[in-house]
Amino acid sequence: MPRYALKIEYDGAPFVGWQRQPKLPSVQGTVEAAVRKLDTNCELVQGAGRTDTGVHATGQVAHVDLTQEWDPFRLSEALNFHLKPSPVAIMAVAAVADDFHARFSAIERSYTFRILSRRAPMTFDKGTVWRITHDLDAEAMQRAADYLIGQHDFTTFRSSVCQAASPIKTLDELRVETIEHQYGVEYRFHIRARSFLHNQVRSFIGTLDRVGAGSWAPERVKVALEAVDRSACGPVCPAHGLYLAKVKYPTDPFSQK
Amino acid sequence: MPRYALKIEYDGAPFVGWQRQPKLPSVQGTVEAAVRKLDTNCELVQGAGRTDTGVHATGQVAHVDLTQEWDPFRLSEALNFHLKPSPVAIMAVAAVADDFHARFSAIERSYTFRILSRRAPMTFDKGTVWRITHDLDAEAMQRAADYLIGQHDFTTFRSSVCQAASPIKTLDELRVETIEHQYGVEYRFHIRARSFLHNQVRSFIGTLDRVGAGSWAPERVKVALEAVDRSACGPVCPAHGLYLAKVKYPTDPFSQK
Repeated sequence: MPRYALKIEYDGAPFVGWQRQPKLPSVQGTVEAAVRKLDTNCELVQGAGRTDTGVHATGQVAHVDLTQEWDPFRLSEALNFHLKPSPVAIMAVAAVADDFHARFSAIERSYTFRILSRRAPMTFDKGTVWRITHDLDAEAMQRAADYLIGQHDFTTFRSSVCQAASPIKTLDELRVETIEHQYGVEYRFHIRARSFLHNQVRSFIGTLDRVGAGSWAPERVKVALEAVDRSACGPVCPAHGLYLAKVKYPTDPFSQK
Repeated sequence: MPRYALKIEYDGAPFVGWQRQPKLPSVQGTVEAAVRKLDTNCELVQGAGRTDTGVHATGQVAHVDLTQEWDPFRLSEALNFHLKPSPVAIMAVAAVADDFHARFSAIERSYTFRILSRRAPMTFDKGTVWRITHDLDAEAMQRAADYLIGQHDFTTFRSSVCQAASPIKTLDELRVETIEHQYGVEYRFHIRARSFLHNQVRSFIGTLDRVGAGSWAPERVKVALEAVDRSACGPVCPAHGLYLAKVKYPTDPFSQK
């Protein structure tokens, strides 16, 4: 059966997350329903990352096996037609080898987290940024973030329900970008690693927000990391500022023509 | 009675437009309802521009007379509290003189129009850009737009229901900006004049889209303008890419402390 990789963008707001759940709206279930309109035999759309309730994606990747061959562009157009009006869109499709696996072939995931500091409630970007009303010190947050880079036991920043075999992960990037908007300032975090623990990014961001607000010294993040203790973590931030931005493979399936 | 100027941002999607209408959701009616929670005597929130159904604003200005004095910051916070959950937010409040009139004191209006060219349907920005699936030639559009700058009889670009006394207006700016997005290209139009005719901006943009797509030569816009004939206009584009971005006064009420 021919296998296709899908690059998917979605607004996570109306979904219980990526993963299919009986009777609840999931992104995976939504994409599978669209695929089944084209191929009734489709059983599974396998995603690279299981985003939580309310988490968005601009670069989720999934693979699916179909019973017939499709021109990739026509397949993306047909899927987008059947996905309407869900806020889920197929941004690219590529024919891939049988041994391509969206999850197990991935060698790196990138997440973006958006915090917007402004007094007034959101109008346009409601649900797509975490709006706060206090200022943040971006330099202090970056100094704290730098303690997290590299290979560490991230038990402090791991949800108690995390199923990963080991709490040891290597964080390759945690960069704070500051973007001036017409109203307010955005702090955009770029986070990159081979893989993540459950709630790791949201635990990072909630903790860095405490640093940015001045209630934690940057060094306290180092102490918290070294404590290897969940109770040393700052608050876990809300899900709706988080985006799965990119999934990397040894060869980018979407750059091949 | 003390008079206050309000700078207002709103997502126009759920509204019939700025202007109050019986039994229909309007931005003006929504702001007036919020003001009345603070001051039961409030009769009118006067806006600078009557945006049409579905048109957004990032810089609408209005004035209101209240029976008591308010600290401007506290007034903005109180109004935002009562505006929830409507996608309408007060971005600034200023105490102004009795002779300040949001509409009649205004000396310039700026609009922004956003076109996004991308194949896939919108997920995050649904309803806040006009999504098209064809490419546009920004240079050709700018050449066409340049014919519209200056003082002209804009009858060609005027809705048949327009109530303005004269079709002669002076267009000060019509600039095309190109912004690369992760997926697709945005064409952002910056349009500025003392005042506009009804549907003038949407008539411009719908016509420029035809130029950008290659079906109109830029020179045809000059011919259309000189025809002084509504039937020479290109199609009127949808409302949901349009934003009232700024209203200018002889002295900016919001920059005074």
